Amino acid sequence: MKQNAATSAEKGRVTIGIDLGGTNLRIAAFDSAWKRLDSITVPTRVADGPTEVVRDMCDSIDRLRQQWGANYELFGVGIGAPGPLELPSGRFYRPPNLPGFDAFVLKDVVEANLRIPVIVEKDANAAALAEWKSGVGKQMPGNSMCMLTLGTGVGAGIILDRKIWHGMIGMGGEGGHIPVVEDGFPCGCGGRGCLEQYASATAIGRAATLAAARGGATAISRLMGRRIQEHGEFTARDLAGLARDGDDVSRQIFADAGKYLGMALAMLVNVFNLPLYVIGGGVVSGWDLFAPRMFEELRRLSYIYCLTEPEKDQPFTAGKTYVVPAATGPDAGLLGAAMLPYLEAGLL
Amino acid sequence: MKQNAATSAEKGRVTIGIDLGGTNLRIAAFDSAWKRLDSITVPTRVADGPTEVVRDMCDSIDRLRQQWGANYELFGVGIGAPGPLELPSGRFYRPPNLPGFDAFVLKDVVEANLRIPVIVEKDANAAALAEWKSGVGKQMPGNSMCMLTLGTGVGAGIILDRKIWHGMIGMGGEGGHIPVVEDGFPCGCGGRGCLEQYASATAIGRAATLAAARGGATAISRLMGRRIQEHGEFTARDLAGLARDGDDVSRQIFADAGKYLGMALAMLVNVFNLPLYVIGGGVVSGWDLFAPRMFEELRRLSYIYCLTEPEKDQPFTAGKTYVVPAATGPDAGLLGAAMLPYLEAGLL
Repeated sequence: MKQNAATSAEKGRVTIGIDLGGTNLRIAAFDSAWKRLDSITVPTRVADGPTEVVRDMCDSIDRLRQQWGANYELFGVGIGAPGPLELPSGRFYRPPNLPGFDAFVLKDVVEANLRIPVIVEKDANAAALAEWKSGVGKQMPGNSMCMLTLGTGVGAGIILDRKIWHGMIGMGGEGGHIPVVEDGFPCGCGGRGCLEQYASATAIGRAATLAAARGGATAISRLMGRRIQEHGEFTARDLAGLARDGDDVSRQIFADAGKYLGMALAMLVNVFNLPLYVIGGGVVSGWDLFAPRMFEELRRLSYIYCLTEPEKDQPFTAGKTYVVPAATGPDAGLLGAAMLPYLEAGLL
Repeated sequence: MKQNAATSAEKGRVTIGIDLGGTNLRIAAFDSAWKRLDSITVPTRVADGPTEVVRDMCDSIDRLRQQWGANYELFGVGIGAPGPLELPSGRFYRPPNLPGFDAFVLKDVVEANLRIPVIVEKDANAAALAEWKSGVGKQMPGNSMCMLTLGTGVGAGIILDRKIWHGMIGMGGEGGHIPVVEDGFPCGCGGRGCLEQYASATAIGRAATLAAARGGATAISRLMGRRIQEHGEFTARDLAGLARDGDDVSRQIFADAGKYLGMALAMLVNVFNLPLYVIGGGVVSGWDLFAPRMFEELRRLSYIYCLTEPEKDQPFTAGKTYVVPAATGPDAGLLGAAMLPYLEAGLL
C-alpha cells in the first residue's frame, strides 16, 4: 500500500466515462465536480471485432483505476455507444458506425470483464445529459430538453421530466432518422431522405463533392484538391472556411443543411413543446452559416409563437422556446457518460 | 326534495364530458363504469362568439346535473377542445376551427359560470385517453401510446408513462403539423406541407376535387356532382365507396394519404419508440384503402424492426410496435373528456 494513499473516509469520488466512437475509443476519469482527472484515447479497433474493442476499453479502465484508486473511490462506469441499441442491455442493432457489432450485448460483456456494474447509454443521450447538467441546460428553467448532435451522423438525446427518454426498448430518440425529403438520399437505416443525410458533417461534405463533380464550383474544387492532397480529406470545416470567405456555392450548402434541420426541429417543437433544443456536434461550428436558414424554416413550420434565439446577455424566460448551440463542446458525450452513474443513483 | 332521491351514501358517481367541436357541441353524462347515461348535442354557435358557446355549454351541463343529480354525485367536468391551446388554462391560440376564440381562456370562464372546477384538454388528448383506457390500449402492455385522429384536421394525443404529454405550455402533441412535404400545401398553422394537409378528411376531399377539376376522373366527377346536388357535399366516405368499387383515381388518393401518414408515423416511431400508435377519426373507416401504403412507407422509413399490424386473434406482444385502427369510434373525445376528472384524481 502506498504511503500517501488516502483512507476511505477521505476519498473523493471518481467516475469513469467512455465514449465508444466509430473511430476513437475515449476513456476518462472525472471527479465529482466534473473536473477531468485523466483521459486515454485509443483507436477503436472495429475490424478486430467487439471483443477486442471491449478488451481495449477494460484495459484503459483498469489503468485509470490503478492510477486514481488510491485517492478516489470508484463511484461507477458509464458508456456512451452509437445507436441504434437496445437499452438498458446495450444490445447493438446493426449500428452503421460499428460494423460487426450487430447483436453484441455491450453491458454484459464489459461487466463480466470488469466485475463491476456499468451503465450503457446511446452516445447522443449521454451528450444531452452533459449539456443539460453542465452546458446550456444549467441556465434553463424546466427539466426537459432535446439535443441534436450533428457529427458523422445525426443523433438525438431527449430528456423529459428529468429522465432520458428511452422509449419501449431504448430505440427512442432516433432524431437523425426523421424523414425530411420524400424519396431522398438512401440512409444507412434502410430508409430514404432521413435528416442524417442532409445535416450531418458527412452530408455536408458529400454536398460539396457533388457540387465539385457537377462543375462550376471552382473554389470548392480547388480547395478540395489541395486538402485531399495534403490531409487526405476535405471536411465540413474546410467548406465553412470557403463559405465565410463568401463562396456562394459553399454558403448555399450550409443554408440547405439549415433548412432541413429547421424542418426536423419544427416537427420536434410541434410534437414535444419543450423549452430547449440544443444543436451540438462538429457541424455546430458552422452555426453562423446554417442557423439563419434553420430559424427561417422553423418559424415558418412550427406552431409555437415564442420561438427565440438566445438574446444577448438576457436570462432565459420560462414559457419561451429556445434553440441554441451546445456549450459543452466535443467532450459532451464523454462527460455525459461519466454522469450516468450519478443519474442512476438519483444524485444528478 | 324528490321522494325517491338516493341518499348521499348510496349515490353513484357521474362525470360530465364535453366535446367542443367546430360544428357541434356535445355534452354527455357517464357513470363510473363509463356507461353513457345521457347526452345533449347542440350546434356550436361559433359566429356568436365564445361567451355564447360557453353559455350553451353551461346550460346543457345544468340540465344534466338536474336530471342526474338526485341519484348521482357529480364527480367532475372535463372539456375537450380543439387546439392549439395552452394548458391547463385552456387559453386558445388562434384555433383554426374556432375563429374568434383566440386568447379566450376556456377554463376560467366555464368555472366562473358553473362555480365548480373543470379540466380542459385538447380534444385529441381526450380521444387518446379514451382509447388508452377503454379502447385498444386496454389490451396493450405498457403505459405509453400515441393516437392520431384524422378528421377535419389531424390531431395527436401522446400518453407517456401514464400521463398525457403536454409539453411546456400544453402545445405538445401537434402531430397534425409534422411537415411531410417540402413547400407543400399551405396550412392553417402558417406552415406548409403539414400532415393535416395530406391525411385529414378535408385533405382527402380536396384531393378528389382537384382530380375532378383536372378532368379525366370521370367516376369522381359524376358522383361529386350528384352528391353535392343531393346533400350539399362530397365526402371522404363517398370517395371511399368509389375506391372500393375499383376506381383507380380514388384508390390512389387514399394510397397517397397512407404514404404521408406513414412518413409522419415513421418520425413518431423513430423518436418515441412507443408500443402503440392508434389511428382514429372519421378517415379510419378507409383503413383498408390507406393502411397498406401506410405500412409500406412506415417499414421503409422507421428504424424499428418489430413493426406489426395486429395479428388476427393474437395477443399483443411486449417489445413489439403496433399501429392499429382505433376501437372507440366517434365518441372517443367525449368519453375521454369525461375521464379527465378521474385521471386528475389519480383514479384511472
